Amino acid sequence: MRTNDDIWVREVGLRDGLQSIETIFPTEAKLDWIRLETDAGVPEIELGSFVPPKLLPQLADTKSVISAVGSEPTLHTSALVPNFRGAIDGFASGVQQLNYVLSVSEAHSQANVRKSVADAIADFGRICDYRKEHREHANVRLAAGLATVFGCTISGEIKVHSVIKVLEELLAHEPDEIVIADTVGFANPSQCREVFELVLSTVGDIPVSAHFHDTRGLGLANVGAALDAGVRRFDSSLGGLGGCPYAPGASGNIVTEDLVFMLESMGLKTGISLEGLLAARTCMVSYLTEEPTRGAFVNAGVPRGAVLASSVNRLGA
Amino acid sequence: MRTNDDIWVREVGLRDGLQSIETIFPTEAKLDWIRLETDAGVPEIELGSFVPPKLLPQLADTKSVISAVGSEPTLHTSALVPNFRGAIDGFASGVQQLNYVLSVSEAHSQANVRKSVADAIADFGRICDYRKEHREHANVRLAAGLATVFGCTISGEIKVHSVIKVLEELLAHEPDEIVIADTVGFANPSQCREVFELVLSTVGDIPVSAHFHDTRGLGLANVGAALDAGVRRFDSSLGGLGGCPYAPGASGNIVTEDLVFMLESMGLKTGISLEGLLAARTCMVSYLTEEPTRGAFVNAGVPRGAVLASSVNRLGA
Repeated sequence: MRTNDDIWVREVGLRDGLQSIETIFPTEAKLDWIRLETDAGVPEIELGSFVPPKLLPQLADTKSVISAVGSEPTLHTSALVPNFRGAIDGFASGVQQLNYVLSVSEAHSQANVRKSVADAIADFGRICDYRKEHREHANVRLAAGLATVFGCTISGEIKVHSVIKVLEELLAHEPDEIVIADTVGFANPSQCREVFELVLSTVGDIPVSAHFHDTRGLGLANVGAALDAGVRRFDSSLGGLGGCPYAPGASGNIVTEDLVFMLESMGLKTGISLEGLLAARTCMVSYLTEEPTRGAFVNAGVPRGAVLASSVNRLGA
Repeated sequence: MRTNDDIWVREVGLRDGLQSIETIFPTEAKLDWIRLETDAGVPEIELGSFVPPKLLPQLADTKSVISAVGSEPTLHTSALVPNFRGAIDGFASGVQQLNYVLSVSEAHSQANVRKSVADAIADFGRICDYRKEHREHANVRLAAGLATVFGCTISGEIKVHSVIKVLEELLAHEPDEIVIADTVGFANPSQCREVFELVLSTVGDIPVSAHFHDTRGLGLANVGAALDAGVRRFDSSLGGLGGCPYAPGASGNIVTEDLVFMLESMGLKTGISLEGLLAARTCMVSYLTEEPTRGAFVNAGVPRGAVLASSVNRLGA
């Protein structure tokens, strides 16, 4: 039984991680990884993205992955869709949730998808309308993600009121979830508290997720601030896959196993087995060619005497 | 002018960092490093430790380092002392502050210094008495550090009330500062908030510092929680020197440049130049043989449009 204080962790390594590295994982490798994270109790995995295969060959098998995973009793499946066309493919794929993402920065939106923010919002509206018109897709959940919320690599500072304005326009289309993303790793804890308090007071009962990158080392500190603001859903990537710590602009997601350890040690239940996550990590790493992974928990383990919140985790060593 | 909201950062890489690695820095290398951090505006550097040279040859030149650094107008100098004997050497060295550390865990204290916690507290009392009796040392500040506050590698959980009991006994000797240390990287943000709120309400006007290690990746998240509790002083190590991220039980301090970036981006003034810190880091790294360093800010830099709190830092790129 989940309670209001339980934390929902979405593994995004198979999408945000894989799209940022050179190695192309065979479908079977992805399925091994997904199986182990499912066994570990991860409640949601973003299985891929409906972008043109030419753009992201790493994710070209998204449809096959979704089909092979099928319906698991404990796993909620989702996939990213960058536009209406991708969403149509997504609806047809059988995945349980589509995560649509737009940028709140006009400059970033134009540079990234050659579309104004207004047009990107309208696209989400079309996706929502499509679901209404096709009752066979009524059970597919639709998440609206806001990127560059904490700053933009092109235009710099993003004003909170412009985030709230975009949010309110998206809410008019009745999304099932809102994702607030620091895709470029600009956020700091003070800003997170301010933004998430305002977002949560704006959305009403709609679940809000936080998507942090660890570009400047502040990822888990931002999680702490978001928790304080009331956020209970987080995206993360096993082993922090996706950013190279030795390259300028490294931008990996926060590390799933470190996130889960932090939450569990704080008494917040994730339902996820850390032992299971480490097994999944070992599997994932075995398919990498030269990309480094990140994370501290993998080396240090559970502190002696520490009590973790979920019953799947034994007491500390 | 410092205000109550300004943050005091103590660089401990020359002590806690160097004592944990193989490379022995020549005195001149230490002086180069210290000069660059002083120029960057770091307000305090722990220059070494008065332990027997046989135990820590890396720090055998502590006396020479202190003597060569002398008195700098913007730098407060300190050194660790493990016992009364070390403190006598410390007083004679001309350093401006002695940092005495004891473990609040009976098992850890016995294993580490073959002394009960009560005897370790009594030792601090002798050090304070010595200062009273030798008026030439009246200006030397005395800090009392409590280690294993958040858990012990030998006995596991440490009860908060036992921490407060040790703290109260130390307070009877009128220390100039209290340091609360998570030497073994066990702390989580919830625990930090609880412990620091209680510590701050116990100590009255005495400054309290937090000393975190990044063993499980939670270092800066713990800083966030300690800030919320009211802590305004932090220990850190340039490049996270001191723990190997690839070794089990890696235990480096939190990374000075990442800490300063986080604080500055949150609007909290450190008075420290990030550019200056990176110059010091480059210098420090040039003397390392094979030890890895950590940190994310060094690769990512200041986000475009970010405003940093201290005037020594220009606006974001």
